[in-house]
Amino acid sequence: MFAERLRKLQVRLHAEQVSFLLVSSGENIFYLTGLEGLEGYLLIGAEGSYLFTDSRYEGAVVGLSDFFSVQVFRKQFTDALQQVLEREKVSTVHYEAKQLTVYQLQLFKKAVPAIEWKGSVDLVERLREQKDEEEIRVIKKSCALLDSGFAYIEQQIAVGMKEKEVAWKLEQFLREQGGDALAFPTIIGSGSNSAVPHHHTSDRVIEFGDIVLVDAGVRYKGYCSDCSRTYVVGESSARFQELYSTVLEAQELALQKVKAGEKALAVDAAAREYISKAGFEGRFGHGTGHGVGIAIHERPRLSPMNTTDVLLEGSVVTVEPGIYVPDFGGVRIEDT
Amino acid sequence: MFAERLRKLQVRLHAEQVSFLLVSSGENIFYLTGLEGLEGYLLIGAEGSYLFTDSRYEGAVVGLSDFFSVQVFRKQFTDALQQVLEREKVSTVHYEAKQLTVYQLQLFKKAVPAIEWKGSVDLVERLREQKDEEEIRVIKKSCALLDSGFAYIEQQIAVGMKEKEVAWKLEQFLREQGGDALAFPTIIGSGSNSAVPHHHTSDRVIEFGDIVLVDAGVRYKGYCSDCSRTYVVGESSARFQELYSTVLEAQELALQKVKAGEKALAVDAAAREYISKAGFEGRFGHGTGHGVGIAIHERPRLSPMNTTDVLLEGSVVTVEPGIYVPDFGGVRIEDT
Repeated sequence: MFAERLRKLQVRLHAEQVSFLLVSSGENIFYLTGLEGLEGYLLIGAEGSYLFTDSRYEGAVVGLSDFFSVQVFRKQFTDALQQVLEREKVSTVHYEAKQLTVYQLQLFKKAVPAIEWKGSVDLVERLREQKDEEEIRVIKKSCALLDSGFAYIEQQIAVGMKEKEVAWKLEQFLREQGGDALAFPTIIGSGSNSAVPHHHTSDRVIEFGDIVLVDAGVRYKGYCSDCSRTYVVGESSARFQELYSTVLEAQELALQKVKAGEKALAVDAAAREYISKAGFEGRFGHGTGHGVGIAIHERPRLSPMNTTDVLLEGSVVTVEPGIYVPDFGGVRIEDT
Repeated sequence: MFAERLRKLQVRLHAEQVSFLLVSSGENIFYLTGLEGLEGYLLIGAEGSYLFTDSRYEGAVVGLSDFFSVQVFRKQFTDALQQVLEREKVSTVHYEAKQLTVYQLQLFKKAVPAIEWKGSVDLVERLREQKDEEEIRVIKKSCALLDSGFAYIEQQIAVGMKEKEVAWKLEQFLREQGGDALAFPTIIGSGSNSAVPHHHTSDRVIEFGDIVLVDAGVRYKGYCSDCSRTYVVGESSARFQELYSTVLEAQELALQKVKAGEKALAVDAAAREYISKAGFEGRFGHGTGHGVGIAIHERPRLSPMNTTDVLLEGSVVTVEPGIYVPDFGGVRIEDT
């Protein structure tokens, strides 16, 4: 699996005329090695690849010596890097411009001045956009776990509970059922808070008749899931039902567009146009969805701003239209 | 409180000949505004300061208009920034080189090309090194909460439990007692795992006679605590007792050095030399401590590498010597 990912990356680097890529992003290192939380770097070349880390991780990386020449450095990473670059007679190294800080780049340039340092963007991220079988298997498990969490929390939500209590109950359930962590802080938006798409879960106490919007995700073996459900405590109003059925229909229309080869924009437009025509123009103030994988938000974006991307085979995305009416409440329905 | 922090920062900027500092670090924004998770930027100038954010946070930032000119941008941050810079006739902006990515800097340079962009390092972090009264009050609460967690978990650890179960029990206790989150993933190192200073908490089952090293921290109102305790399940061996009493004495010697005006290096040396003389040279492979505050690791570092810094009044640090004997186990005693 890692051999295959590495091979695909090498093909891409060759196509982009990148001779060596220095991978510093933890997510990308996890994708290429399976190691979470490794402090280190990968140097990916067409002929051979290197893994640099310090002695704390010496034990963790032994299994990777089939794919990487493992360099355990004692003091400075840049000393070990310089030795390899000299041996390989490298003149140019590409770094990950979206992850590397200006300060780190300055350190690299100072420590290894003979190299030309060039920025690159999304080289590994574009590979990650197309999930392989193992990734899809794990994401499905992450989603199944999250599903069971929603089935549980729907039964728990009750008048008198604080939003934070609901979030904590759900987190405990997900962790005890095998989740490694939350994928992001759970959003519990009750009453008019449900009208705030990125509401910060609060101490507000749930009242009879409240809308309760739950947006949650779990991390399982390194992969995220992300879904939203909107409940009502007690009787739902006709107005709520109108919002709910509009959002549900918008989601179904968008889901029909989720196919390899379709424009990202078309998925967004399917939901957005339906919601507008139903009389809620301007009440859906965020994108229709986003890629999910090692990161909770990754390629591709399904938004009105993404006018270029086409959905690729093996992509995993959320579809999450919503309608938000200030002082009344909101509905979002999201599936991965 | 925020007025005072802002004033101190302005004095520092003046001393460093920085006319405008663009603050992008979330931790530094929290320090200067009290807002956690705000997506936005601060532009700090000698005469006036600006807060840039998008409409999602419009409600959250209204209370800050006494300290900042609040700029809610609709599309691009850089458009709003350019307008302010033109109005203020600014020619140079300093950015935070340790936090800004190369990619972000490129975007800024492209969007606002008339400005000279200069890197700066630790300008706000050096202010944060000296905690004010309110910060010390909150950190003390965070530590008291963590203390109660250790009192609880000491009673819970038992033969047959997995390391991960111990970690989860402690996390639940800390969260239910008012902690907002863990400050970092708890380290539970049992048996020979206790000899690995940065052990990744595993499914290893605790056996009778095991050493169990617990390194944990909690985040409370934005501030971290960080302590370690080392227990034995059942009877402790004479060898363990020797390690334990050596580490405890090393910690006490180091703690005596923790005074404003003392060299950071002297604190480390006090613990390190005692451990070496006791016959454990080379068995204490990490620094003696670090600053704690909004970040779990911040200024100052108490390590053999830090040959320059002096402890400042109001600093909060950990003191955490340890001895690690491979295949036997380790002891670390850490207090904030």
